[in-house]
Amino acid sequence: MKQLNVGLVGLGTVGGGTYTVLARNGDEMARRTGVTVKVTHVADRNLARANELTKGAVAITDDAFALVANPDVEVVVELIGGTTIAKEVVLKAIENHKHVVTANKALIAMHGNEIFSAAQKAGVMVAYEAAVAGGIPIIKALREGLGANRIEWVAGIINGTTNFILTEMREKGLAYQDVIGEAQRLGYAEADPTFDVEGIDAAHKLVIMSAIAFGMPLKFDAVYTEGITKLEQTDLQYAESLGYTIKLLGIAKRTNQGVELRVHPTLIPAKRLVANVDGAMNAVVVQGDAVGPTLYYGAGAGAEPTASAVVADLLDVARLKDAEPLQRAAALGYQLNQVQDLPVVAIADINSAYYLRMHATDKPGVMAAVTKILADRNISIDAMLQKEHAASASGTDIVLLSHETIEKYMDAAITEIEALADVKGQVVKLRMETLG
Amino acid sequence: MKQLNVGLVGLGTVGGGTYTVLARNGDEMARRTGVTVKVTHVADRNLARANELTKGAVAITDDAFALVANPDVEVVVELIGGTTIAKEVVLKAIENHKHVVTANKALIAMHGNEIFSAAQKAGVMVAYEAAVAGGIPIIKALREGLGANRIEWVAGIINGTTNFILTEMREKGLAYQDVIGEAQRLGYAEADPTFDVEGIDAAHKLVIMSAIAFGMPLKFDAVYTEGITKLEQTDLQYAESLGYTIKLLGIAKRTNQGVELRVHPTLIPAKRLVANVDGAMNAVVVQGDAVGPTLYYGAGAGAEPTASAVVADLLDVARLKDAEPLQRAAALGYQLNQVQDLPVVAIADINSAYYLRMHATDKPGVMAAVTKILADRNISIDAMLQKEHAASASGTDIVLLSHETIEKYMDAAITEIEALADVKGQVVKLRMETLG
Repeated sequence: MKQLNVGLVGLGTVGGGTYTVLARNGDEMARRTGVTVKVTHVADRNLARANELTKGAVAITDDAFALVANPDVEVVVELIGGTTIAKEVVLKAIENHKHVVTANKALIAMHGNEIFSAAQKAGVMVAYEAAVAGGIPIIKALREGLGANRIEWVAGIINGTTNFILTEMREKGLAYQDVIGEAQRLGYAEADPTFDVEGIDAAHKLVIMSAIAFGMPLKFDAVYTEGITKLEQTDLQYAESLGYTIKLLGIAKRTNQGVELRVHPTLIPAKRLVANVDGAMNAVVVQGDAVGPTLYYGAGAGAEPTASAVVADLLDVARLKDAEPLQRAAALGYQLNQVQDLPVVAIADINSAYYLRMHATDKPGVMAAVTKILADRNISIDAMLQKEHAASASGTDIVLLSHETIEKYMDAAITEIEALADVKGQVVKLRMETLG
Repeated sequence: MKQLNVGLVGLGTVGGGTYTVLARNGDEMARRTGVTVKVTHVADRNLARANELTKGAVAITDDAFALVANPDVEVVVELIGGTTIAKEVVLKAIENHKHVVTANKALIAMHGNEIFSAAQKAGVMVAYEAAVAGGIPIIKALREGLGANRIEWVAGIINGTTNFILTEMREKGLAYQDVIGEAQRLGYAEADPTFDVEGIDAAHKLVIMSAIAFGMPLKFDAVYTEGITKLEQTDLQYAESLGYTIKLLGIAKRTNQGVELRVHPTLIPAKRLVANVDGAMNAVVVQGDAVGPTLYYGAGAGAEPTASAVVADLLDVARLKDAEPLQRAAALGYQLNQVQDLPVVAIADINSAYYLRMHATDKPGVMAAVTKILADRNISIDAMLQKEHAASASGTDIVLLSHETIEKYMDAAITEIEALADVKGQVVKLRMETLG
């Protein structure tokens, strides 16, 4: 039987999982593909860890660049993470005409344009299914399964940490500050959770999906990113009472003005399937012009779920390593010479419906003043709620759901609302999506 | 640019949708694949319809076999349906060394073993993404995206008609007989709905997924099939009050005894994502040993959703038509010489939890007698509900949820329960799955 020689760089959580899955299911995979996928070389700075895992079965080195230069290695699996050494390893592997599989979303999001261009020149594959939504085969779905469609938008829960935190906040009525510690204890959040809770990790994944969906370059710097740290329990409850659930969504949408690329807490109708994706699970909704909405759900992280995607990429490499370029799916979904730069819509210019919450004195006329400010900007109101203020006995909470408008009009209205004498403090603004 | 010449056989709903999608999105697809996919030939018995759709742009015939013999056609898209002429057309196309794309689930389920064997001999591709769950790319997910996994089970809502009917029954409190007419009026059910409502269509799709998931031959005749026509509103309501939703599921599961292949109404926990898939939509849950559960959701029928899958297959053919056999994903997921016959577990021998409902006289001792009968067979009870009988003032309904047992033990217990003097009529038995 033919064999694919795999060089594994980095034996952390995902690297260990990849080694384990290949060892456990290698025979089953060979029945599927007719090829044996075998880890023949491993590189890890921790040689003891490498020895323990591989038990002398494979060649071990602590020098990633030695592995990448080894003529016996056909495909390099980069699982070290980060964007410095990982980038060098990947580019060196490509230069040495080796195929590359990586789970590194930051690397692809920030340096993918350069990497895919180098890969094309060298005639090698660079696969990265594990970089978005872990074990969910969303890259393959976007790139191949939905290839007949003009993709209109993609919206996803693509960060398990924040979805776990939001689920806990909703189910237990706790504040963000109360949940983050538990998430850290359970291993759902890192010691420094910034990357996750500020939406940066989700932005990495979103920008990768946007390139595949729309045939545009990776424009990570253009993604608008807003995390969940300022989200208040009050708003989760008001949203729920109005029939909505708040999720941190990554949204990529084609519009006449360009492409919207944004990550932020979003109210979505509670009856939507994606609104019911709880805990650390991920889900991506894709709207295609032919197929309509489809949804893909599964574990977005973890050793074996991520390894599932890494190994799926290895099976593609095993099949297509010697194929002609056009016989392989284009790395970013579109042929590189067909990638078209599309303008990214500034957040002030996006079109969205909004949730507003304000604290007002309980006097007649406040509501009239607020609604007039909105009406003056042609912002119409979809639903309204008035309730005794949550934190104090004085005054009321006014909650409004608007129809769609341009964000800058809403921002101008909010500035004016905040200037009203009877409105206390700042207006909370959240974006809404029907995903319908 | 390279071109793939497509011969389209059958211009009904899906054929028309396929033509439309290729015409509308052809340029976008060419940007992706570097190949132009073009319908060059069309065969339909209704030449007027063919003319109207294609407006002279392609060669038209009313003879499918002429199209299949045409040397200019590279891939035949079979969209006539049925298993007689369709089978001849497909086998003839293969014999003529043409690739085949089909949406015909009955054909693949019943004659797939023969068709794939012929295709392998001829060195051509036979693709059938549209045969299961319409526009959802579940075949590609099972075959490629989850290729790293040992698949443990697959469970799906894979018939839109029955899911629409069950959703209407639940939401409006109506009986099956009251909903089927509406489903027919809205086009969700055929004039003769037998194929859908008796679970046969779902069985076709299930058997296809089971072959890919487990590397076994297509064994359509071995699928246990039970439809929704006898399902009562009472049971939907009791299920809901116990935290469950009833869905018609197709279930394929590996066990130590063999493979379970069954289609039947199933209680599933209401909080599971798949329990919230409503209306005519489809969803498939796949449990892989590495990735855990993943779910795929979308439209399971309709012109353009189905066309989305047909055209995705054409894109695969465009890429891989001249590739080596091992460079293509194996048609049924496993290399043909690696397909292993697995025994299918008889329905009496499956392992399941059960929902039982019985009508009993309101006397002390009935419950004790019932529970003793179950206990004697080591069947333990998970939940119980006693309520005034729905239809009459006399007696009570007793509803029981059991833990897992072998079906024949449960059947024996039911026979004994029905023999009790204080139990009236038959016991209703439904299977339950946690899908956890």
